[in-house]
Amino acid sequence: MITIVAKCTVKPEKIDEFMKIALDLVDASRGEEGNVSYDLYADLANPAKFTFIEAWKDRAAIDAHNGTPHFKGFGERAGPLFAGPLDIGLYRRVV
Amino acid sequence: MITIVAKCTVKPEKIDEFMKIALDLVDASRGEEGNVSYDLYADLANPAKFTFIEAWKDRAAIDAHNGTPHFKGFGERAGPLFAGPLDIGLYRRVV
Repeated sequence: MITIVAKCTVKPEKIDEFMKIALDLVDASRGEEGNVSYDLYADLANPAKFTFIEAWKDRAAIDAHNGTPHFKGFGERAGPLFAGPLDIGLYRRVV
Repeated sequence: MITIVAKCTVKPEKIDEFMKIALDLVDASRGEEGNVSYDLYADLANPAKFTFIEAWKDRAAIDAHNGTPHFKGFGERAGPLFAGPLDIGLYRRVV
């Protein structure tokens, strides 16, 4: 299993728009065969900061996800809403 | 419930020492009354990078955790092993 932690900062005036797009992505991603979990978190100290925490069965599941229309569509629609680059890490669980 | 994502970078020569200390912290923290989950992840792209993903019942549980001997002890023992400041965020789950 591979866990992805993807942190993003949204332009303050684009938070509502981002939320709609992000919820669509979460919903569609959870439906993928290789997905274990896909959750969106909001930073308590900064309403413009969000983190996706995702768990995938394996690398192939992530590759499949990256090729889906909903993921690509998210990238196109959400891209202009971000205030900077995303901070994405792929992890294995140690304990 | 509050989720904490705490990212850290360890000095390359201190990874084994960090792992021992971190596993002690995980074990003890999971035993706390206010803890929901407490997991350690290793970055697949960089063996010196780790992320704790923790879930706590509420803010009081986090305050209690921060006051425990095992958390304070971790800070003292692990502090010199880090290559830089930790990146810690507290989150609420959106979906």
